[in-house]
Amino acid sequence: AIIPVNKTAHPFDKTRFEALLNRRFFYAPAFEIYGGVAGLYDYGPPGSSLQANIIAEWRKHFIVEEHMLEIDSTIMTPAPVFETSGHVARFADWMVKDDQTGDVLRADHLVKGVLEARLVGDKEARGLAAQPQKEDEKKRKKKVVKTAGVQLSDDAVKEYEVILAQLDNYSGPEIGELCRKYDIRNPDTGNKVTEPQHSTSCQHPETAQGHFLNFSRLLEFNNGRVPFASAQIGRSFRNEISPRAGLLRVREFTMAEIEHYVDPEDKRHERFDEVSDIVLDLLDRDVQASGSTQVKKISVGDAVATGIIANETLGYFVARIHQFLVKIGIDPARLRFRQHMANEMAHYATDCWDAEIQNSYGWTECVGCADRAAYDLTVHSKKTGHPLVVRQALKEPIVTERLVAELNKKVLGKTFGKDAGAIQKVFLELDEPRLLEIQRELAQGSAIVATPDGRKLSLTPEIVTIERKTFKQSIREFTPNVIEPSFGLGRILYVLLEHNFWAREQDIERGVLSLPPIIAPTKVLIVPLSAKEEFDPLVQEVSSKLRKAGIFARVDDSNTSIGKRYARNDELGTPFGVTLDFASIQNRTMTLRERDTTGQLIGDIDQVISVLVDLVNDSADWVEACRRLPAYDGVQAVD
Amino acid sequence: AIIPVNKTAHPFDKTRFEALLNRRFFYAPAFEIYGGVAGLYDYGPPGSSLQANIIAEWRKHFIVEEHMLEIDSTIMTPAPVFETSGHVARFADWMVKDDQTGDVLRADHLVKGVLEARLVGDKEARGLAAQPQKEDEKKRKKKVVKTAGVQLSDDAVKEYEVILAQLDNYSGPEIGELCRKYDIRNPDTGNKVTEPQHSTSCQHPETAQGHFLNFSRLLEFNNGRVPFASAQIGRSFRNEISPRAGLLRVREFTMAEIEHYVDPEDKRHERFDEVSDIVLDLLDRDVQASGSTQVKKISVGDAVATGIIANETLGYFVARIHQFLVKIGIDPARLRFRQHMANEMAHYATDCWDAEIQNSYGWTECVGCADRAAYDLTVHSKKTGHPLVVRQALKEPIVTERLVAELNKKVLGKTFGKDAGAIQKVFLELDEPRLLEIQRELAQGSAIVATPDGRKLSLTPEIVTIERKTFKQSIREFTPNVIEPSFGLGRILYVLLEHNFWAREQDIERGVLSLPPIIAPTKVLIVPLSAKEEFDPLVQEVSSKLRKAGIFARVDDSNTSIGKRYARNDELGTPFGVTLDFASIQNRTMTLRERDTTGQLIGDIDQVISVLVDLVNDSADWVEACRRLPAYDGVQAVD
Repeated sequence: AIIPVNKTAHPFDKTRFEALLNRRFFYAPAFEIYGGVAGLYDYGPPGSSLQANIIAEWRKHFIVEEHMLEIDSTIMTPAPVFETSGHVARFADWMVKDDQTGDVLRADHLVKGVLEARLVGDKEARGLAAQPQKEDEKKRKKKVVKTAGVQLSDDAVKEYEVILAQLDNYSGPEIGELCRKYDIRNPDTGNKVTEPQHSTSCQHPETAQGHFLNFSRLLEFNNGRVPFASAQIGRSFRNEISPRAGLLRVREFTMAEIEHYVDPEDKRHERFDEVSDIVLDLLDRDVQASGSTQVKKISVGDAVATGIIANETLGYFVARIHQFLVKIGIDPARLRFRQHMANEMAHYATDCWDAEIQNSYGWTECVGCADRAAYDLTVHSKKTGHPLVVRQALKEPIVTERLVAELNKKVLGKTFGKDAGAIQKVFLELDEPRLLEIQRELAQGSAIVATPDGRKLSLTPEIVTIERKTFKQSIREFTPNVIEPSFGLGRILYVLLEHNFWAREQDIERGVLSLPPIIAPTKVLIVPLSAKEEFDPLVQEVSSKLRKAGIFARVDDSNTSIGKRYARNDELGTPFGVTLDFASIQNRTMTLRERDTTGQLIGDIDQVISVLVDLVNDSADWVEACRRLPAYDGVQAVD
Repeated sequence: AIIPVNKTAHPFDKTRFEALLNRRFFYAPAFEIYGGVAGLYDYGPPGSSLQANIIAEWRKHFIVEEHMLEIDSTIMTPAPVFETSGHVARFADWMVKDDQTGDVLRADHLVKGVLEARLVGDKEARGLAAQPQKEDEKKRKKKVVKTAGVQLSDDAVKEYEVILAQLDNYSGPEIGELCRKYDIRNPDTGNKVTEPQHSTSCQHPETAQGHFLNFSRLLEFNNGRVPFASAQIGRSFRNEISPRAGLLRVREFTMAEIEHYVDPEDKRHERFDEVSDIVLDLLDRDVQASGSTQVKKISVGDAVATGIIANETLGYFVARIHQFLVKIGIDPARLRFRQHMANEMAHYATDCWDAEIQNSYGWTECVGCADRAAYDLTVHSKKTGHPLVVRQALKEPIVTERLVAELNKKVLGKTFGKDAGAIQKVFLELDEPRLLEIQRELAQGSAIVATPDGRKLSLTPEIVTIERKTFKQSIREFTPNVIEPSFGLGRILYVLLEHNFWAREQDIERGVLSLPPIIAPTKVLIVPLSAKEEFDPLVQEVSSKLRKAGIFARVDDSNTSIGKRYARNDELGTPFGVTLDFASIQNRTMTLRERDTTGQLIGDIDQVISVLVDLVNDSADWVEACRRLPAYDGVQAVD
């Protein structure tokens, strides 16, 4: 039953791959029967289970393993929160709507796209070679507007060029004026667009703000101690102008985000030793700056020790992300961590690494891992006046000494009357050297002090005494820093499917998804020879025993050959199958099939179930199974 | 260790209950540090875990047990879908916004509330007793607007009364006009409101449409067979005008919805026998119509047999909902199923039952279970032209006979030239008796047929023959009916917390949440005597063994007494606790505490863990645990 498998006999065939995902309803365009909406996808049963299993594994790997505090905050978010977080300035640009379809477009991108296209068309019409479009990442993401090949007047060309050069400076209403004046329409439909409006979306583009706003409660829940982390899995939304690349660029998606709060003066991580030997493919800032994309293979321990990764906690999470992705089935050879360039990173961030995974669209950012410093907690705290800080009892109080002036208010009032207050204020602002001088003068009998209006008053030791005093600070108050690993689950799911797709060597039409058992939508397929009633008791028994063992199985008693049913489940990524035939009824035996090798074993029903439990829970592999059960040679079949 | 517990020593105290939920961060107003937003709540760690556990149990109880097809469709939904589903007409009323805060208000409710309040104020000012406000359910849910006690002119009173009587007939712009003319403002803020707009929310008020739109794909996934069900857990949104009652009436909530597709001619359910003996508290239509709320205790089997519940499948799901709610900890004595009155139900629905749960706010609908007939699939199919039907091979083909006219087109054309087409059309519309007449006439030699313009033409047997033919229909095509159980998870979570809250007899301040182990946020609390390092190895060992057994445990090594740590976890609903003290280090023993009785047992660490596993997995109860482990008498304690 151990049959060598050649998974690379056929090169990756995207058309066949996408046909499989569509045929088996992993996901499909949302609102398909209404014509679909770009950038929105619905997950069918296998996609939905796959996502649920990835999330379950994520919960185990991060939340349970690290005792994180899971929260569930609302999607609807009032505008002031986004203004404070910086999202309005950064993301919520002026938007227009297609006045027929309601499609939302970013106003400045629309103007830019349309005017640039007209300029290109003008060049074509004038017989000049159109300038080759720059192929950098940013550009390719933007809408490519069809060029019309229409010649413009010389004045129009000049006006367009001026507008394009200054586009960043236009206000919303001014862009609206441009759209009217130059008849700028939605290039997808030819429809006019509405007045630009600030997109004050009530839907958040990340789940992070829900963590930060609940920081005080979470800290209290954690008995006031840091480090600790909050975690959340939730839906987020982005105004993608022209979504494409399937699940890699969508308008609505599920994220899993962690906010790990840490003492800014101590970013060590107590479990760093457990991961320090993990070797990663790192693409650091310096290598990128030199124009190269050559990764460095280096252990996390060394990367932190040599300062490539800024601190232990950040390194710890980078390594844990690596472990997680590989565990669920991402090919480690196609996984790298790319450091953000200084100008790419938010100004407040200390360091940021993206887990990028190679797929047919290129290298795609699937997880971000940033040290956001104290930015988020600080801005929300400033805006609301609500302190978002940790108050920590110091193990050893900090003892400081300084000179302190004490005024005898009674004598002061009697002597100076309404000037008493002014004198008190003056003393509040005196520095140490000046206090020392006054102390010395007082020792001589009296000291002269100037009031704010310039009068000089003489004070006696009876009125003021200056002494060195000891102060003890036993509480330290600080705003924690935040390390944020942030996972785009839809992207991970998509690249995972790509990495696990292959076709049988002997038949390119027979696609297989080699999903690891832990995340496969269905773990075991139960295949009775036919839907005849005589198989029912055994099907019930096996189903029920697997369910009790916590293994998700499905019965396929559809009216097709066993081979076709297995082929269908190879496409669904079901790792194991058991067949119940007439021999099963006679001898209580059952065959066990492995998806990738198609090898088959046979054994007593309970024996096979016990092997299955170990296979699914990853405590045995197929080699081990082959040791425990004899290979199936086909003679037991009765038909 | 079996100590009798009196959970009803103190009456339910809502203030203490809410303080507990807030103190332990089950949930809290969202955006609290920004002043909060009415109707939006964030779940903290225990609330979030509780919700996740309820969902996990729901998945097991419904999706896994019934082999449902889980999907995950988008929240964003284009307007045409809602127009077709009927949501725009039914839900998406004219809305206005507060022009400062942006709060959204339903325009007609605003006008009604403000004008009614002014009329009440007028009555007060005139010294007339204000009419007592009707206290029916509907009224109480609506905003109560502060009455001002200002007298109005007689004309104004008349105008207001006319407007109120006709309010349903005003269009959006007309309501806008009213707001301007009568200076109707947001009563919460005193701010003006914007022009009424149709609320074409892009966020769905239910997850159901995502199921229906994917029906064809789901049917194909299920090999073309019904019955089957799709299931989805997702976030939904409603424009609640004045949210209140905490989690019972919110703007954003998590739903779990099932759409079970069934043959309209056969609504039996194959597993109905498994539930038919379950006795439910039913409040049927007739009892309600008689003005009573006296429930009938009746088995589901009898309710279906006597026609109280419309069909087996609906009855099956009502019973399964009952099982689920009781399993997660709802008090069955405070659970009833109320049938919708005919005028309360959507016009297309056949029957509808709400699971209502009694709590401090009254009886609250927490689950709906409706037979929506073929409505949804039919409207989407009509609108899109995409057939949403089942095509079923008939076991026995339906054989029908009918008279069929066959025209010899060659002769027909030669004889009648351009009239040939008209004659063909005439024959398409002839009914059976007329065909029989013509057949008889032809047998006599020729038959007279009238053209649409009144000419009479004579046809011979050479041109037309009429014969009885046999037709065989082997495929039946039908639109399935939909049974829809729809769960409001936030409401269930809230009433569950109420039902499980009580205070210790000897101390009303010591609140307990007696959550069943299957849904408790944390199953086991591990309590080392102190945070001293000497306990670390044992804490690690116990944590790791419980984790391997799949049991979610938390360590509390905070710097307070063991008693206080247990009290905190009684409030969190943690059912079991284990204490590690110096005796544990010396003898490898551990004490096991049960939350409700506070009884304690002692045993070898591994023995205690094995008992714990059975307790948490519900395969042993505390009585059984007391049989397996000796009671802890306190002598083993070393301090």
